[in-house]
Amino acid sequence: MKKFAVVLSGCGVYDGSEIHEATLTLVAIKKQGADYQVFAPDIWQHHVINHLTGEEMAEKRNVLIESARIARGEIKPLTDYNPADFDALVLPGGFGAAKNLSSFAFDGDKMQVNELVAEKIKATAAAGKLIGALCIAPVIIAKILQGSELTIGNDAGTAQAIKAMGGNHFDAPSGAVVVDEKHKVFTTPCYMLDGNIAQVAASCENVIKTMMESM
Amino acid sequence: MKKFAVVLSGCGVYDGSEIHEATLTLVAIKKQGADYQVFAPDIWQHHVINHLTGEEMAEKRNVLIESARIARGEIKPLTDYNPADFDALVLPGGFGAAKNLSSFAFDGDKMQVNELVAEKIKATAAAGKLIGALCIAPVIIAKILQGSELTIGNDAGTAQAIKAMGGNHFDAPSGAVVVDEKHKVFTTPCYMLDGNIAQVAASCENVIKTMMESM
Repeated sequence: MKKFAVVLSGCGVYDGSEIHEATLTLVAIKKQGADYQVFAPDIWQHHVINHLTGEEMAEKRNVLIESARIARGEIKPLTDYNPADFDALVLPGGFGAAKNLSSFAFDGDKMQVNELVAEKIKATAAAGKLIGALCIAPVIIAKILQGSELTIGNDAGTAQAIKAMGGNHFDAPSGAVVVDEKHKVFTTPCYMLDGNIAQVAASCENVIKTMMESM
Repeated sequence: MKKFAVVLSGCGVYDGSEIHEATLTLVAIKKQGADYQVFAPDIWQHHVINHLTGEEMAEKRNVLIESARIARGEIKPLTDYNPADFDALVLPGGFGAAKNLSSFAFDGDKMQVNELVAEKIKATAAAGKLIGALCIAPVIIAKILQGSELTIGNDAGTAQAIKAMGGNHFDAPSGAVVVDEKHKVFTTPCYMLDGNIAQVAASCENVIKTMMESM
């Protein structure tokens, strides 16, 4: 049975993993007859956003503990991830990818990637395993795997930042998957395009299906 | 276009709405060509559970604010819900239904239902609109709509409590929907049975589809 490592970044679109994308990625993996293990780094969130008002809250939350909400407790710290045990690694989107796993939301193309996240992505690529990235998460891949080909939909500013970091961006419509055969990278826009939850479900299903066909 | 009101109880299986059930209910509604509005009561959670360790955390969180994470901010306080504007009301599961919307997790068949939640369920039934309840949420319906026929899967203790509160419980397998035509109540087990996320997706899809066919 093929096995995916799914790396989360918290629990909620504005300060963590986008919940629908994370959930629908897990569903897509199971529906394709594969299995998954969820991981997250044991770090503090950059901040906590009140998702009702959009304002910052005077709280501290931990990425691993909050990601455990999406994983129903069945989660491991990212330090435990070993590419040898998996066929692919997948990064769902949400601002957590741009605030906790990297600093893209604040620094744009001058961003830093969390050291552990960078190390694990490099190790995955070095082992010849597949990498999937949804929504905004491809910016992390652009920074780590120089020259990779990817999509975040059609946002001009983000596409420009990807280019500035050494990536190649391709505009893509809802549900489409951009495949970089050389780097074994699979990307899809999800909520980076203004779609509804059924369109995001299709995006998640298509990227996992395309990855399964390439294994 | 048919419209569902989806009532959440927080964000995370152990102290709020079960995230997969909530997300997959929203997907099922959109896939069936209907629309939804998410609601939650503006109340404190009973407590906050660390989903990594299962232990209580020394924090306070608000049900409406945390539910907004699942709804991507597009949520209204439950006070705003008017059955006249909707075709159906749906309650996904998770311990939030048994800890925040009611006290079932602590008081069993002696439980209280949150007054606003009770009032809105009664108003929905009085208006002849459909009610869906997933996972553990049917215990609330058993208490409010006396004599209703429902399922929470096959947990003997919970089935006994439903009976003690005046409901009729029917054992049901994964994905099955129990329909109470008199009370227009639709229930399905989801994670009350030990299934995987793809089985829960089927459960959510089946209950929404069955409700659509009865509208």
